[in-house]
Amino acid sequence: MAAPKGYKIATLGSHSALQILKGAKDEGFKTIVIATPDRVALYKRFNFIDQILQIPNFADFPKIEKELIRQKAIMIPHGSFVAYLGLDQHRKMKVPYFGNKKVLDWESNRLKQRQWLEKAHVPVPRRFKNASEIDAPVLVKAYGAAGGHGYFFAKNKKEFRQKIKSFKHKNYLIQEYVIGVSAYIHYFYSPLTKKLEILSIDRRYETNVDSLGRIPSHNQRGLGIEPSFVVVGNSPLVLRESLLANAFEMGERTVVASQKLMPGGLWGPFCLEAIITPTQEFFVIELSCRIVAGTNLFIDGSPYSALYYNKDVSTGRRIAMEIKKAINFKKLDKILD
Amino acid sequence: MAAPKGYKIATLGSHSALQILKGAKDEGFKTIVIATPDRVALYKRFNFIDQILQIPNFADFPKIEKELIRQKAIMIPHGSFVAYLGLDQHRKMKVPYFGNKKVLDWESNRLKQRQWLEKAHVPVPRRFKNASEIDAPVLVKAYGAAGGHGYFFAKNKKEFRQKIKSFKHKNYLIQEYVIGVSAYIHYFYSPLTKKLEILSIDRRYETNVDSLGRIPSHNQRGLGIEPSFVVVGNSPLVLRESLLANAFEMGERTVVASQKLMPGGLWGPFCLEAIITPTQEFFVIELSCRIVAGTNLFIDGSPYSALYYNKDVSTGRRIAMEIKKAINFKKLDKILD
Amino acid sequence: MAAPKGYKIATLGSHSALQILKGAKDEGFKTIVIATPDRVALYKRFNFIDQILQIPNFADFPKIEKELIRQKAIMIPHGSFVAYLGLDQHRKMKVPYFGNKKVLDWESNRLKQRQWLEKAHVPVPRRFKNASEIDAPVLVKAYGAAGGHGYFFAKNKKEFRQKIKSFKHKNYLIQEYVIGVSAYIHYFYSPLTKKLEILSIDRRYETNVDSLGRIPSHNQRGLGIEPSFVVVGNSPLVLRESLLANAFEMGERTVVASQKLMPGGLWGPFCLEAIITPTQEFFVIELSCRIVAGTNLFIDGSPYSALYYNKDVSTGRRIAMEIKKAINFKKLDKILD
Repeated sequence: MAAPKGYKIATLGSHSALQILKGAKDEGFKTIVIATPDRVALYKRFNFIDQILQIPNFADFPKIEKELIRQKAIMIPHGSFVAYLGLDQHRKMKVPYFGNKKVLDWESNRLKQRQWLEKAHVPVPRRFKNASEIDAPVLVKAYGAAGGHGYFFAKNKKEFRQKIKSFKHKNYLIQEYVIGVSAYIHYFYSPLTKKLEILSIDRRYETNVDSLGRIPSHNQRGLGIEPSFVVVGNSPLVLRESLLANAFEMGERTVVASQKLMPGGLWGPFCLEAIITPTQEFFVIELSCRIVAGTNLFIDGSPYSALYYNKDVSTGRRIAMEIKKAINFKKLDKILD
Repeated sequence: MAAPKGYKIATLGSHSALQILKGAKDEGFKTIVIATPDRVALYKRFNFIDQILQIPNFADFPKIEKELIRQKAIMIPHGSFVAYLGLDQHRKMKVPYFGNKKVLDWESNRLKQRQWLEKAHVPVPRRFKNASEIDAPVLVKAYGAAGGHGYFFAKNKKEFRQKIKSFKHKNYLIQEYVIGVSAYIHYFYSPLTKKLEILSIDRRYETNVDSLGRIPSHNQRGLGIEPSFVVVGNSPLVLRESLLANAFEMGERTVVASQKLMPGGLWGPFCLEAIITPTQEFFVIELSCRIVAGTNLFIDGSPYSALYYNKDVSTGRRIAMEIKKAINFKKLDKILD
Repeated sequence: MAAPKGYKIATLGSHSALQILKGAKDEGFKTIVIATPDRVALYKRFNFIDQILQIPNFADFPKIEKELIRQKAIMIPHGSFVAYLGLDQHRKMKVPYFGNKKVLDWESNRLKQRQWLEKAHVPVPRRFKNASEIDAPVLVKAYGAAGGHGYFFAKNKKEFRQKIKSFKHKNYLIQEYVIGVSAYIHYFYSPLTKKLEILSIDRRYETNVDSLGRIPSHNQRGLGIEPSFVVVGNSPLVLRESLLANAFEMGERTVVASQKLMPGGLWGPFCLEAIITPTQEFFVIELSCRIVAGTNLFIDGSPYSALYYNKDVSTGRRIAMEIKKAINFKKLDKILD
């Protein structure tokens, strides 16, 4: 299939670039990866990447914007954009961008994100505004923490006070540590059809915390292991069908609330990171307003996307499908920022 | 593909309805979901569902039976049938039903189920008829417990005696808690070809028990967490190939024993829920005589069903394939009850 | 598709035989399984197996070699070959064999394997040459241990000394127990294109160790459970995209080092079994020079093989693709031994 009207799909070489560009190629687009020298070898391995634009550092991104615009590239953001470009450069990007940049402020500020979720009536864990209020186990998260760094767990007020002394971050949120299993729900909201899809679900694979269960408690004693939550991978999940109704509605309320809070609201892929308790309630601990790495499990399709499409549709491919549709219906302005 | 001779496939809106109806549609059937008002929105999201029959409560099911019969619907039971309709109403259903209703009594009674498995020489955990016999950690299961509710774990006789006081259920089974990993094996027995297939395997995702391993033992102390086994999802597994021979044989013996115990025996999808010990022995802790929720992982195919079919075959689709075959060979009476 | 020039693909009935033979059939080969009587029933269940050659014991393998050669069979080794045939018989096999037998000595000897990995600058856990040096938790592995038997964990020197008394094996390696999560990376190196692919990634499912996390620490007390690492299955994983560059490079260095250490070096499927620490470093605890059982998860395709091929490619099928290519380009001598 020819590239739809000469548009190309581009992204930064990291996070879910392989999925995004494979999906784009499957939908007939030419593909571009912007890569730093240490990653060029990785992206050269794959035939579906048509072009590698090398830059010395991601901070040099503005220097190639003209070239990207000249090539009719559409940028697909992922979790490394804010991390590598910074919020400001990200916002100022001139290359057509899939998604609404206005969500960035609301997402990046932990308190505003909480406000958004509360407005959407999405349940969130209790927050302790200061240490003296702590009456349950807590998870302490630095503002802007990503990939599982900048977290710590404290059993109670006393342990919080002890651990906060060696915590490097000044701005943080103290949340109740909700005991339950986690599920990361991958949504896609189409501004063209106004429909929300659940495309897949995953669970994170975190080191060292996901290895602790394999050490018997009597062996843990004396090892002095502190849990860390560094995400190094993902494994697939499905949810009980009776929980899906709730999952869809939480997602829809998140979209509706966004439309009230910021012009245009949230569209494209997003993720609610939930804890599910023994009473089968969801508590959302984080909102990600773009493709998340857990979708990489489903490059060859997912049990949920199979409910909508008779082909293997990952989130990356779903993005390309939306862009192709917008091009064909001359509605690119509805999906780009 | 046209709907085979006007038959439609129907099920209750819950559990694995999406999988069942997607599979039916892929095999050319028209599809019907019977849904309560709170679930209508969920099932409206999917194009492969041709018709939603809304009823105020599942207890109102008998009122739409005539309509289902008129439309030549074939009902596919799943785990929510007994839970929502009750054993009695389930048995009295007049709509053509995929499966043998005679298995219901044997399955729903924990002692009869145990007798069935023992007759099949399928290893089951030791049972303690009364508390004084307890000489090992035990799992106590209320009769009719489903979805992980109505269970508790006790380390020894003393802990059993303490915990039984606050247990709400009067009828329960005390079984040895076999230490090992779990595997839920999804079988399909075809009464047309007399062949047994293993279609997929999963592991349950239970809250809060599957989150405990992520809390270091020194942090667990003082939190006073009691494990609960509420199933909220599933994750995929494959077994060592050398264990498959045994898995197939256990499944076959379960079918053969059923044919001795009840006219017609067991057919269609069923599941053996096994614990595998370090000596690689299976202990079966539960038999489910229908499609189980773990099969929802494999809507887009499974590594095991790929060994039989050159298309993506879920258990839901496999059921539709069997019905289609029976229609074409005029053998519907062999598979319906 | 006709069998390519009359060649057939054969393997021993165990481990990943189903995957290998299904993949071979999908690429147009006739297939043969060599099975012991207890496994014949299992392999009869599958249509893609054209021929079952029954032998009383795997030790009788030499007796059917002539027949296999007459039929133009190409043998695909897997993890059960060394276990069942022994290193010596394995080496002396006269049937054309996919892979380089010269890797067997380097792989089977724990010290030589370590030397190989060190030459490849692949990080390995610290080794303690004798007990007095132990200053960290250790994993003790018997030479030739397979499938998770012959391992034990010790928290410190004292516990090592206590446990070694009842350890049945005389030759063993004492390695630091690296605390982190595991990932088994499935590679394929093509001697025809000189390219390395990552086809899939898994995590092992081990009994009883993967059930321990589900028992709260206060319940573990008094049960006296010792962890065992008997592999009974596998579950799927993907890695963070930023870790893939490193994963590819470790794999390539392993191939390059092999070419220096042994004529021809390593080709075909192999696996690096890694622990990933909270600093996102890999430590490789084992190298397997052939198809591993974790690839059985991906008989119907994997998120990684989908990046190279627009069809469902398992490691078993990838092997058949390589053989077909070698036949067509008259380069069978490059891939057989």
